[in-house]
Amino acid sequence: MRILLANGPNLSQLGHRSPDVYGTASISDIVAAVKRVHDDVDDFVTEYEGALIERLHRARTDGTAAVVVNAGALTHYSYALRDAIELIELPTVEVHLSQIAAREPFRHHSVISAVVDVTITGAGAYGYELAVLAARQLVAARHGAD
Amino acid sequence: MRILLANGPNLSQLGHRSPDVYGTASISDIVAAVKRVHDDVDDFVTEYEGALIERLHRARTDGTAAVVVNAGALTHYSYALRDAIELIELPTVEVHLSQIAAREPFRHHSVISAVVDVTITGAGAYGYELAVLAARQLVAARHGAD
Amino acid sequence: MRILLANGPNLSQLGHRSPDVYGTASISDIVAAVKRVHDDVDDFVTEYEGALIERLHRARTDGTAAVVVNAGALTHYSYALRDAIELIELPTVEVHLSQIAAREPFRHHSVISAVVDVTITGAGAYGYELAVLAARQLVAARHGAD
Amino acid sequence: MRILLANGPNLSQLGHRSPDVYGTASISDIVAAVKRVHDDVDDFVTEYEGALIERLHRARTDGTAAVVVNAGALTHYSYALRDAIELIELPTVEVHLSQIAAREPFRHHSVISAVVDVTITGAGAYGYELAVLAARQLVAARHGAD
Amino acid sequence: MRILLANGPNLSQLGHRSPDVYGTASISDIVAAVKRVHDDVDDFVTEYEGALIERLHRARTDGTAAVVVNAGALTHYSYALRDAIELIELPTVEVHLSQIAAREPFRHHSVISAVVDVTITGAGAYGYELAVLAARQLVAARHGAD
Amino acid sequence: MRILLANGPNLSQLGHRSPDVYGTASISDIVAAVKRVHDDVDDFVTEYEGALIERLHRARTDGTAAVVVNAGALTHYSYALRDAIELIELPTVEVHLSQIAAREPFRHHSVISAVVDVTITGAGAYGYELAVLAARQLVAARHGAD
Amino acid sequence: MRILLANGPNLSQLGHRSPDVYGTASISDIVAAVKRVHDDVDDFVTEYEGALIERLHRARTDGTAAVVVNAGALTHYSYALRDAIELIELPTVEVHLSQIAAREPFRHHSVISAVVDVTITGAGAYGYELAVLAARQLVAARHGAD
Amino acid sequence: MRILLANGPNLSQLGHRSPDVYGTASISDIVAAVKRVHDDVDDFVTEYEGALIERLHRARTDGTAAVVVNAGALTHYSYALRDAIELIELPTVEVHLSQIAAREPFRHHSVISAVVDVTITGAGAYGYELAVLAARQLVAARHGAD
Amino acid sequence: MRILLANGPNLSQLGHRSPDVYGTASISDIVAAVKRVHDDVDDFVTEYEGALIERLHRARTDGTAAVVVNAGALTHYSYALRDAIELIELPTVEVHLSQIAAREPFRHHSVISAVVDVTITGAGAYGYELAVLAARQLVAARHGAD
Amino acid sequence: MRILLANGPNLSQLGHRSPDVYGTASISDIVAAVKRVHDDVDDFVTEYEGALIERLHRARTDGTAAVVVNAGALTHYSYALRDAIELIELPTVEVHLSQIAAREPFRHHSVISAVVDVTITGAGAYGYELAVLAARQLVAARHGAD
Amino acid sequence: MRILLANGPNLSQLGHRSPDVYGTASISDIVAAVKRVHDDVDDFVTEYEGALIERLHRARTDGTAAVVVNAGALTHYSYALRDAIELIELPTVEVHLSQIAAREPFRHHSVISAVVDVTITGAGAYGYELAVLAARQLVAARHGAD
Amino acid sequence: MRILLANGPNLSQLGHRSPDVYGTASISDIVAAVKRVHDDVDDFVTEYEGALIERLHRARTDGTAAVVVNAGALTHYSYALRDAIELIELPTVEVHLSQIAAREPFRHHSVISAVVDVTITGAGAYGYELAVLAARQLVAARHGAD
Repeated sequence: MRILLANGPNLSQLGHRSPDVYGTASISDIVAAVKRVHDDVDDFVTEYEGALIERLHRARTDGTAAVVVNAGALTHYSYALRDAIELIELPTVEVHLSQIAAREPFRHHSVISAVVDVTITGAGAYGYELAVLAARQLVAARHGAD
Repeated sequence: MRILLANGPNLSQLGHRSPDVYGTASISDIVAAVKRVHDDVDDFVTEYEGALIERLHRARTDGTAAVVVNAGALTHYSYALRDAIELIELPTVEVHLSQIAAREPFRHHSVISAVVDVTITGAGAYGYELAVLAARQLVAARHGAD
Repeated sequence: MRILLANGPNLSQLGHRSPDVYGTASISDIVAAVKRVHDDVDDFVTEYEGALIERLHRARTDGTAAVVVNAGALTHYSYALRDAIELIELPTVEVHLSQIAAREPFRHHSVISAVVDVTITGAGAYGYELAVLAARQLVAARHGAD
Repeated sequence: MRILLANGPNLSQLGHRSPDVYGTASISDIVAAVKRVHDDVDDFVTEYEGALIERLHRARTDGTAAVVVNAGALTHYSYALRDAIELIELPTVEVHLSQIAAREPFRHHSVISAVVDVTITGAGAYGYELAVLAARQLVAARHGAD
Repeated sequence: MRILLANGPNLSQLGHRSPDVYGTASISDIVAAVKRVHDDVDDFVTEYEGALIERLHRARTDGTAAVVVNAGALTHYSYALRDAIELIELPTVEVHLSQIAAREPFRHHSVISAVVDVTITGAGAYGYELAVLAARQLVAARHGAD
Repeated sequence: MRILLANGPNLSQLGHRSPDVYGTASISDIVAAVKRVHDDVDDFVTEYEGALIERLHRARTDGTAAVVVNAGALTHYSYALRDAIELIELPTVEVHLSQIAAREPFRHHSVISAVVDVTITGAGAYGYELAVLAARQLVAARHGAD
Repeated sequence: MRILLANGPNLSQLGHRSPDVYGTASISDIVAAVKRVHDDVDDFVTEYEGALIERLHRARTDGTAAVVVNAGALTHYSYALRDAIELIELPTVEVHLSQIAAREPFRHHSVISAVVDVTITGAGAYGYELAVLAARQLVAARHGAD
Repeated sequence: MRILLANGPNLSQLGHRSPDVYGTASISDIVAAVKRVHDDVDDFVTEYEGALIERLHRARTDGTAAVVVNAGALTHYSYALRDAIELIELPTVEVHLSQIAAREPFRHHSVISAVVDVTITGAGAYGYELAVLAARQLVAARHGAD
Repeated sequence: MRILLANGPNLSQLGHRSPDVYGTASISDIVAAVKRVHDDVDDFVTEYEGALIERLHRARTDGTAAVVVNAGALTHYSYALRDAIELIELPTVEVHLSQIAAREPFRHHSVISAVVDVTITGAGAYGYELAVLAARQLVAARHGAD
Repeated sequence: MRILLANGPNLSQLGHRSPDVYGTASISDIVAAVKRVHDDVDDFVTEYEGALIERLHRARTDGTAAVVVNAGALTHYSYALRDAIELIELPTVEVHLSQIAAREPFRHHSVISAVVDVTITGAGAYGYELAVLAARQLVAARHGAD
Repeated sequence: MRILLANGPNLSQLGHRSPDVYGTASISDIVAAVKRVHDDVDDFVTEYEGALIERLHRARTDGTAAVVVNAGALTHYSYALRDAIELIELPTVEVHLSQIAAREPFRHHSVISAVVDVTITGAGAYGYELAVLAARQLVAARHGAD
Repeated sequence: MRILLANGPNLSQLGHRSPDVYGTASISDIVAAVKRVHDDVDDFVTEYEGALIERLHRARTDGTAAVVVNAGALTHYSYALRDAIELIELPTVEVHLSQIAAREPFRHHSVISAVVDVTITGAGAYGYELAVLAARQLVAARHGAD
C-alpha cells in the first residue's frame, strides 16, 4: 500500500518562510520524519497547479491507496484541483501546518474540504503524521466495507 | 479554415469521472466524433492554465478561424484565461458537458462567458458538435460583415 | 415528433428592438427559418407569464416531444415559469439570442437554467436552430435510455 | 360567510407534479375535500398573476369574509400580489403544501408572509383544511373585537 | 401629440387603499384631473404585466409621443416591463404617488428607473400632472435636437 | 398516543409580555385550552436550550408520537435544537403565536423549519390547536404509509 | 412665501461639467430661469456640507416655506445633511439634473430621499421648475390640512 | 497528565443519530475506545452550553493538561464557548466526527476554530484518537518551549 | 430601590482572563467596589443563558427597579436574552468592560442594544459604576414622567 | 486639567429637533448643566467636519487632557474624523443622546467607536455627565500607568 | 507649467501621527523636498472637503497643468471630491503615503481611483516625487496626443 | 544590485492587446526602455503561475535586491503568488499598466497589494520606470534602517 503526500505552491520554501507560523523544518525534513515512521509513503512537491493535478490523476492508476494533500494557497481557489481530488475517488486527507481559521480571512475557506474525507489543521509538521494515520484508517475502513 | 477545440483541467479524465454527470466517452472519443463530422478541427488538452493560455495566444497567428473552449473548472476563477480569450479576438464558443447551473453553486458563474460569443451547456458530448456549428456560423457572420 | 418553440415577453418586437444586440429579423422570420429546416416545429409567442405557463402545461399532453424556450426577461425572476418547466418533465432547451453574461448584471442569472437540460446563449437567430438540434438529440437520448 | 381559496400558478397541475413532494391529489380533489367539511368555500385557480390580483380585489366587495391563498411560486417575487392582499384588508391565511423551508433556497422567502395573518406550510392537502379553520377563527376574532 | 398614462397592478384600487399613503382619489379621479389640464392624454389601467407590455408596444406605432408610467409593484421586479419601456424608445416618465424611498425596503429599488428619462416620486396625485409636464418637455427637447 | 407540547425561552411569561403581540393568555391557559380538546397532550416549558434538547431526546423513547414545538427566540439561532429535532425522527410541528415574518428581521429566519414537518405562524393561541391537529395527521399519515 | 433652492458640491461648475450629462446652462442660468417664472425663490450654492447644513437650519426660522435641494454627491453619503433636512420639518423636494439611476452604482442610492417629500430626477434644468411647482403644492397641502 | 474530552449537545445520542453520517458507536463506546489506548483521559458530555463552559473553566485549575472538544452544533454560534476556550489557555483540539465542510452551509463555519490549536474533521470515531495524539504533542511542544 | 447587576458567561473568570483587555479585578472585586458606593445593588453571575433569563424574569416582580447587564458573549447571539430584557420592561443598562467595537468583528454587533436604554462600553470596571448611575437616572426619569 | 466637549452637525439644533428622541434641552443647556458640575470643561459646536477636525488637532497641544465627542451623523461615515481622533492620542469618550442601536440601520454603525476609549449611548443629556466622569477616569488611569 | 499638490484632512499633522506608518516628516518637509526637485509645484493643505473641492475647481482655470492629490480619509467616502476631480479634466495622480491595502478594511477602497489617471501607494514621502514625475508624463502624453 | 521585473500571464501579448488600454509597445519594448535607464534590471515573462512563483523563490537567493511585479490577471486570485511574494521578504513594487480601478469590477481588487510595499497603477509603460525608482528607494531605505 502506497500513500502519496502531495504538496503545492510554496511548501518547497518551508523553513525559510515565517518560522513562527510554519516552523523551521523544510518540507524534506517533514517528509523524512514521516517516512521514518511510515515506509510506504511517496512524496511530491510542485509550484504548479497543473502538475499537482497530473500527479493526482496518476495516483488513480499507480497503486496509490490514499492521498495526503497540502495544496498551499491553491486550497482557497483551485476548483480544478478540487475536481481532480474528487474524480480520483481515493481516500484523501487535507492537511495544513497552521490553524488557517486563525489567520487572514482568505485562508478561512478551503474549496477542497468538501471533497476530501478528513481535514487536519494547526498541528504543524506532526499534522502530516496524523494525516497518514487517518489515511491508513480510511483505507482500512473501505476494505472493511467490501 | 481551422477550428481549435481547447480543453482544460480534468477533461483528460473523461470517461473515468462521474459517468452519470459526464458520460462514458473519453475526450479522445469526443474529439474523434467531432472530427468525423468536421475535418478542419484541431484539438488540445492540458491541465495547465499557462499552457491553455499559450495555446490560445498561438491561435491568434496560426490560421485558427475560431475557438471552442471547455476550460473545466478554470471557468470559475481564471481571469488570466479570460484575458487570453479576449485578446486573441477570434470567434469563441464556450462549451460545458453538464448543465453547470444545476450543480454546485461555485459552478454557476463563468468568468469567461462575458468575453466569448456563444455558450452551450448541458448537451453532453454532442455539445461539442453544436459548438463547432456555432463557431462556423460566427466565422461566416464576421466574413459576411466585411 | 413535435418540438415547441415558446417565446416570452418582448420577443414579438424583435427586429425593432436594439438591432445591434438582437439583429433585424422578426420572431416570425426566425421561426420561419427554423421551420424551413425542421418541419415538426410549433411556435408560440406571448407577453404573459400566465399564457406561457399554460402553453407549457399543454405540452405535457399534446404530443410535444421537447421544448425550446426563450423566456425573455422572465428568465431572470419567474419562478412560476421555472416550476412549469420542471413539472412537464419534457426535454427542454433554453435559448437566448444575445450573450446575456456580457450585458447588464440582472441578465447574468437565469432562474430556469437549473431545470432545463441545455442552455444556448449568444448565437443569435441561429441559436434557435442549434436549440432544435439539441432538443432532438435529447429526445433521442431519452428513447435510447428506455 | 364565504371563504375564498385562491390558487396561483402550477397548482392546476397537482397530481401530475412531483408526487413525492406534492402528493397525488389534484387541486380539484383538494378543494372538494375541503368543501365536504366546509360548505361556505369558494375556489379559484389561475396561472396569471393579474387574474389572481383581480380575484382578490373582487373579494373586497363580494361578501368574502376571509381568504386562503396558495400563490405557488409567485410567493417568492410577486410584490404586486402582496399589495393586493394588503389592500383588501381581509383576514388572510397563506398555505403551502410542502415545507418550503426545506427546499431550494429561493423558496425560503415569501414576499407575502408579512401581510397575511397566518402561514401554514408542510401539511400537504390537509393544510387547506387547517387554513380554513384558521381563517374562520380570524373572522371570529375580528367580530369579537367589534 | 398624445401622451399615454399607463398604470399597473392595484392602481385600480386607489381611494380604497391606505388613504394615508395614497390619498382618497381613485385612479379615474386622478386621470380626470390630469385631462382637465391636458387634453391630449390617453390612459390605461391593468393588473396584468402582459397587458401593460402590450400597451407599451402599441405606443411605439399609434402616435403616442411620450409615456407616463406608474407600474405599481411591478416597478420592483418586472424586467420584462423594463425591456418593453426600453425598446419603444419613447420619452418616458416614471411616477409614484408615495415617496417609495421612505417605505418598505423592497420599494426602494426600481428596476425601470435606469431606462426611463425622468422619475417623480412622492408628489401624490399631483405627481401625474408634473409627469405630463416633464413628458411634454422631453418631447420638445427631442424635437429641438432634430 | 402522546403528543408533546415543548415550549422554549420566555413562553413562561406569556400574558405579561406585549399583549398586543402575544395575547393575554398565559402558557398554562393555552396548554389547558389545548388539553380540553386533546386529552393525550404532555407539556414542557423551559428557559434552557439544554433542557429543551434533553426533553426532546426523551421523547424518542417515552412513547411520544409527535412533537409540537415553540422554541421562542431559540428558533433563530439554536442549531443544537435543530439537531435534536432532526435526530429524534418524530413528526414535528413548529408553531409561533405571532406572524414572525411581519416582525423584526432577525425573526424572519427559523433555523429549525427545514427539519420540522409543518410550520404554523400567526394564529395566536389557536395555533397550538391547529398544530396538534397537524401532528395527529402526520402520525396517521406515517402509519398509513406502513 | 419664500422657496429656497439649495445647491451642494460641484453644482457651481455646471456648464463646464460633462455637458452631455448636465447640459450647458450654469447654475446661475438655471436659477435665473426659475426666478423668471417664480419670483419668490431664494438660492444658495456651496461646496461645503457644513454651509449647506447651516443654510437649512436658517430656513427653519427665516420665513422659508419650502426647500428644493440638489445636494450633488453629498446625496450619496451625507447623513448629517439628512438630519438637517429632517429636523427643519419644512416641505422639501429633492432634485437631480441627471437620471441618477442610470449612472454609476454609487449614485443609485440617495441617503436623503427617505426624509424629503418629493424626488424628481432626470428632467435636467427643467427639473428645478417642476420642483418648485411640487414645493408650492406641498405648502398648499399643509395649509389645507390645517 | 490528564486530557479532557468535552462533548456538547446531541453527542449523547450518537449511535441513534443518522448512522450513515455519524456511525453506530455511542459516545460511551468512543470514549471507551480512546481510554483503552490513553489511560489519562477524562470525559464529559452535556446538552448545556453553560455546563460545557463551567467544565472548561474547571480545567484551568484541576490539572487538565489539554482539551479535546466536540461542541456539537454549538460550534456554529456559541461565542460564549469560544471565550471559555480562549481564556483557559490550555492546548485545545477541536474534533468533529463528520466532514462538516461537506454538509449543510451552516456547518461550514466554526466560531471556535480560531481559538483552538488544532482542528480534525471527518475521521469519525478515530478522530478522537487522533485528537488525543495531537493534544499530547501540543503539551510536549509547550513544555519543550519552556 | 434595588438595582440588579446581572453577569453572563465567562465573567466569573475575570482577573484570570486576558488582563490586558479585562483588567485584573475579579467580578467579585468589581461588584464589591460598586456596592461600596451603591448599597442597593444585587448581583448575579451565571454561565447559563437560561439562568440569566430566569433571573431577569424574577426581576419583574421582586422589587428590582433597574437592571445593569453584562451578558458576555451572549450579547452577540442570544435573541432569547433580548426577549427577556424586552419583556420585563425595566430600565436597563448594557455594560461591557472592553471597547467591543475595537475587537474581533463578531463582537461589534450586540443583539440586545436595541432593547436596552443605555449602553456603556470600554470603561472597564468603572463602567459598572457609570452604569448604576445611568440606571438610577433612568428610574428617576420614569418616575418624573408619572 | 481641561476636558473638551466637541459637538458635530445638527447638535446646535437640539431642543428644536424631535423632542421625543432628543429631549427639549438645547446644546447650551446641556453644556451649562455639565459645567455646573465640572468647571474644567471647554465646549465646541460646529456643522463642519473640517472645523471639528481642526478643533481636535488643537486639543493635542492646548492642554486638553481628554475629549468627549458627539459627532452627530458624521459618526456614521467620517473616516477623516476617525483619523483625527486617533492621531491626537488623547483619552476620548464617544457620546450619543439617543440609543442609536434602536433607530434607523444607518445609525447602528459608528466609524469612530474603534478608536475611542469609551462609548456611551442612550442616556440623553445625562450621558454628557457620565462621559465627563469616564474621561476623568481615563486620564487618571493613564497617569496611574506612568 | 504648474503642478498642484493638494492634501486633505489630517495631512497637516504628519510627523505627529503614527510615525511607524507615516514617517516623521511633516507635510511641509515633504512639499519642500518635492519643490527642491520640481520648481513648478504649488501646494495646498486643508481639513475641509469643501475647500479641497474649491481648490480643484480653481485649478481648472488658473494655469494648473496637472494635479497630485492625497485626499486623506476623504479618499474612502467623498463622492463630492470624486466629482470635482472628474469635472476639472486635468491629468491627476492619487498618492498615499502608506500601503492602504495592508491596513484597515475601510482603507482598501478609494472612491476616487476610478477617475484619476495614476495611483501610487506605499512609497512614503518619496511617493510625492514619483507622483510629480507621473503627472509630468501625463501632461507630456496629452500634448503629444494633440 | 539587481532588480527583477517579473511579468505574468498575457503580458507577452502587449502591443497586440487592446492598444487603447495597454498601448502599442510590446513587453520587450517596455523592458528595453527601462534597461536603457537602469542597467541593473533582470526581466522574466511567463504565462504560468507556477513559473512566476519559482522565479520569485529564486530571487530570494540569487542576489536580487528588489522585485517589480506585474502579475497580469493573477493579481486578482492567485493567493499562491501572494504567498510567494510575502515569503521572499524582498522590497516589492506592484505595477499595472492600466488604472485597474476604472475597469471591470473583478480588476478592482488585488490579492497581492497587502503584501507588496508599493503599488503603481495607470501610468502605462512609464509605470515600470517609476516602479524601478520606487524599488531602488525601498532598497536604500532598508539599508538606511540597518
